[in-house]
Amino acid sequence: MSDKRELPIGIFDSGMGGLTVLKAIASLLPAENLLYLGDTARLPYGTKGRDTIVRYTLLAAGKLVEIGVKMLVVACNTATSAALPVLQKEFAPIPVLGVIGPGARAACQASKNGHIAVIATQATVQGGAYQHAIDAINPGAKVTARACTLLVSLAEEGWTEGPIARAVLARYLDDIFHDPDAPDTLLLGCTHFPLFLNSLREVVGEETRIVDSASATAEDVAKRLDELGILRAGGETGKRDFLTTDNPERFTRVGGHFLGVAMNRNQARLVDL
Amino acid sequence: MSDKRELPIGIFDSGMGGLTVLKAIASLLPAENLLYLGDTARLPYGTKGRDTIVRYTLLAAGKLVEIGVKMLVVACNTATSAALPVLQKEFAPIPVLGVIGPGARAACQASKNGHIAVIATQATVQGGAYQHAIDAINPGAKVTARACTLLVSLAEEGWTEGPIARAVLARYLDDIFHDPDAPDTLLLGCTHFPLFLNSLREVVGEETRIVDSASATAEDVAKRLDELGILRAGGETGKRDFLTTDNPERFTRVGGHFLGVAMNRNQARLVDL
Repeated sequence: MSDKRELPIGIFDSGMGGLTVLKAIASLLPAENLLYLGDTARLPYGTKGRDTIVRYTLLAAGKLVEIGVKMLVVACNTATSAALPVLQKEFAPIPVLGVIGPGARAACQASKNGHIAVIATQATVQGGAYQHAIDAINPGAKVTARACTLLVSLAEEGWTEGPIARAVLARYLDDIFHDPDAPDTLLLGCTHFPLFLNSLREVVGEETRIVDSASATAEDVAKRLDELGILRAGGETGKRDFLTTDNPERFTRVGGHFLGVAMNRNQARLVDL
Repeated sequence: MSDKRELPIGIFDSGMGGLTVLKAIASLLPAENLLYLGDTARLPYGTKGRDTIVRYTLLAAGKLVEIGVKMLVVACNTATSAALPVLQKEFAPIPVLGVIGPGARAACQASKNGHIAVIATQATVQGGAYQHAIDAINPGAKVTARACTLLVSLAEEGWTEGPIARAVLARYLDDIFHDPDAPDTLLLGCTHFPLFLNSLREVVGEETRIVDSASATAEDVAKRLDELGILRAGGETGKRDFLTTDNPERFTRVGGHFLGVAMNRNQARLVDL
């Protein structure tokens, strides 16, 4: 009889951005086995329509379930926004967690003046998931959401600092933050965006709190596994396996930026969905 | 018995950029019926691996052949670069034309000093198709190729002019053009790039010739249809039909930029591949 606790946590993203979430989970729960799938062949999800995102997310999550996981983490804001309830229904009783709820909670905890700016992909902003999640936690909060489409490609090009990154961020954000009623908190509603932390700091100022979903999601994962009695015990570090739907060379090269440590070409395996 | 001349020319692109090629064909051959398919659900192709690009291109072209076309035009540099020979073999005897050969010919005709700069997606530059095509026409030519990944998203965001566009172009091109042995011709090896014409002019100077594949491809289409005796005669304008694999609203909104005229939401129809 296999021990459920030994099964990996399946972490799914449209590409490499979700590696920031994997990193937070690995840091909080080093003993867990982690299986990551980046659907790089179809990336980005953020400019696609809802039906297409749901279809692709079901395919990717289905692959992880087929391999065998004890929990699914949707480490992509766009996919969480479009498909979380569908995934929870489709794959029950496997628990499925997203990044929107934890991100909204982190932002509500950080904000003092009750005005939160959310930057995300076009699909996430249009879907309104962050606006709804923040409203559910703090109904009095004001939310200003903005789609920052170009940041995804800027991050993948590695241009996250310097004059071009600053000019792009200023173009997206200046009118929001140069306002007497400016938000005091900026929520990074896309897993690519933490790479812009230094540039964002220069554009929104030192006093603005900048939060993302990664740590809060890792806390949710730990809490849920504990509740279900399937935390993996033991001092040894768990396995980390990486699957990609396109070009493992590019996945590991760009992935290293998100993980904060260089990846070896052989760490990622190609899968077809 | 159906008349082959009445069948549409099938034009395929990963997204909306190929509409610049459709426009050139419609302008040269107004009587032809044109059927365009933009695989927007899987765009961009330019950062994907070769095998993935070939797989997606075969699916999309297969859809056009299934509907019925008298010729296939691959209006995407990345797809031409990766998949043209495969498509020609797969769909024979239907003629399949790409944009790389015509673009290379236009550049060789324009260059006086024999040094041509090619800007394209990562996949097109890595595949070396333009380098080979130019070498086949003018073996003495020097080719400097550069991947300009970010331009695709900039074009889709509509930021093709202004300080950000100029800064991005300067970052990609300054070292090539601020050189005593600079190219005298810049070949736009991606169908998105003609939208940057004004900004490019400011970055590479008035004396550099800037060429793209669209008109040269349209000339190839006319020549080949004539040779095969399947040019559509008559003074009436042909039908233009548009298929997209994701979000017709976005396709028609962004597509208008490339076509140079606004498109109506109802002009594009969703298809699944």
